[in-house]
Amino acid sequence: MASIFEQSHLRMSSGDMTERIREAAAFLKGKIRRTPLEPSPKLAAILGVPVWLKLESLQVTGSFKIRGAWFRLAQSSAAERARGILTCSAGNHGKGVAYAAKELGIGAVICVPKSVDRAKYEGMVALGAEVRVSEFSGYDDTEIWAREQAEAEGKPFISPFDDVDVMAGNGGTLAVEILEEAPEARTFIVPVGGGGMAAGLAFHVKEKLRPAVVIGCQHELSPGLKVSLEAGHAITRLPAIETVAGGVEGGTGELPFEILRTRIDDVALMSEQEIFAATRWMMEQHQYLIEPSAAVTIAACLVGKVPKITSPAVVVISGRNVSLDVVRRILDL
Amino acid sequence: MASIFEQSHLRMSSGDMTERIREAAAFLKGKIRRTPLEPSPKLAAILGVPVWLKLESLQVTGSFKIRGAWFRLAQSSAAERARGILTCSAGNHGKGVAYAAKELGIGAVICVPKSVDRAKYEGMVALGAEVRVSEFSGYDDTEIWAREQAEAEGKPFISPFDDVDVMAGNGGTLAVEILEEAPEARTFIVPVGGGGMAAGLAFHVKEKLRPAVVIGCQHELSPGLKVSLEAGHAITRLPAIETVAGGVEGGTGELPFEILRTRIDDVALMSEQEIFAATRWMMEQHQYLIEPSAAVTIAACLVGKVPKITSPAVVVISGRNVSLDVVRRILDL
Repeated sequence: MASIFEQSHLRMSSGDMTERIREAAAFLKGKIRRTPLEPSPKLAAILGVPVWLKLESLQVTGSFKIRGAWFRLAQSSAAERARGILTCSAGNHGKGVAYAAKELGIGAVICVPKSVDRAKYEGMVALGAEVRVSEFSGYDDTEIWAREQAEAEGKPFISPFDDVDVMAGNGGTLAVEILEEAPEARTFIVPVGGGGMAAGLAFHVKEKLRPAVVIGCQHELSPGLKVSLEAGHAITRLPAIETVAGGVEGGTGELPFEILRTRIDDVALMSEQEIFAATRWMMEQHQYLIEPSAAVTIAACLVGKVPKITSPAVVVISGRNVSLDVVRRILDL
Repeated sequence: MASIFEQSHLRMSSGDMTERIREAAAFLKGKIRRTPLEPSPKLAAILGVPVWLKLESLQVTGSFKIRGAWFRLAQSSAAERARGILTCSAGNHGKGVAYAAKELGIGAVICVPKSVDRAKYEGMVALGAEVRVSEFSGYDDTEIWAREQAEAEGKPFISPFDDVDVMAGNGGTLAVEILEEAPEARTFIVPVGGGGMAAGLAFHVKEKLRPAVVIGCQHELSPGLKVSLEAGHAITRLPAIETVAGGVEGGTGELPFEILRTRIDDVALMSEQEIFAATRWMMEQHQYLIEPSAAVTIAACLVGKVPKITSPAVVVISGRNVSLDVVRRILDL
């Protein structure tokens, strides 16, 4: 069996991964929202191809992260359920885990960087999770601290991206929905943090469509996937940066990189100011509040940092969890 | 046959209206979004009953108005379709008409007050409608001007609320969806402008449920329904007011009043500042951008201007079409 994870110990064929995505999609059906795929005439005029926005910002818990979190937690053993789980998150995965854990009756501890967005923090607490704030401002350092606690407390550590079920749930099921509604789409523009959603989506669209183009968008000061592709292996730790786009901060996961290294066509790197402008653009043109991390894809389209696009395109809008303080900063010209 | 419109020439029984709502719901299925019914734990804590938000702010065209507009235009005769139609709107009905007219291949002229929100104006123009801006800042004066043009040009005038198909589409189909997903709901808190949506919704829930409570929310400076109820007949014209909540400005329609006069349980009147605060609250608590007109219902719940609520409640969030300038004012930038 040819494994799609050549550099890791995990043995899993393309057929296995396809089946996992199918399972995840079936599991999530009726549990989460079918988010709209909305045409964007303005982006279509800019890019010169039909463009749709996949509005996961309108998802339950405010982001796509509920998909992978719920599917992953549903696989927990009875012993794990009794003991509870521990995870680490910039916020959206944490809200997804908190929601799913509550639905499944599992205790959840969520470790977050001290830079966590207040709306995300309050969302996790409101859902009944135990939230522990680290002394670090970045995701990567916070994860090391979180894994130590998981080990000390005998709790399984649920990675927000470095996990097959999370990748299948987050990116795979998103791709399934997109292709059902826009079968003509061939270009996919996605935000990349740890890379789990991008990997699940890229895997599915490249299995189903030829040719398909997948463009990842990151923060220019935290270009984890870009430097991983240059190095030829996953760069899992990056120094923390100061940003309101915490969802696209930090290194790339090992398993996502194994999928992405042969399936990502380009990486666009966006500045904080470009992200701010794109967040405003979404409010002005589509009247949706989105979080800065979600605006990296819009930013890449607006400032022409994507390569020439020649086929109908879907732009993934990943979330809406942003505090009013940050919105005020974004609108304060 | 006992008509539900006793004070007008229109003869229509309750059974006729129920059938019209059923037709509208069937017509719209698959054409528009099934918007989410989202629990609001924070409002539930304030009101002491389970509370859901019906998020028509996430509807195609950015408001519930697409429902009535599309169903109404679909009833047009071939001659009407050839001649084109004319309507008047504070903006959301206009966007709905523009969208439906484009889908149906009908020419549309939309008259708007000079105070029209820029996001609404640009949305109508982008959808290909001919938009005519009046010299008046209120809806009522603009409608007189619009009806003169419709007559001069031989075009049917499509009322945003004083029309059975519009009422059935806007409020009736909304009520059908709500009751399918929250059959235990017995209290309904709705924004009231001309009263079309409120009438369609109140009609349907009071036919299907006993007891059911319907609370209308208006701007305190434009309390059309409140004064109509006191007068015992529809007050269709009110002086223009200065507000960013143009969707709840102006008098009450004759036909909506005929339905509402026996079916509305209370009217809550909100100030501009209360509306601003409620718009901020929605961004802070649910991370959705909504327009000020839509925030009247939230405002009524937050400041306790609704009567004591004793049964599970649905709060209708009517739209999201608001310009960035107004958002900045609301956030006090």
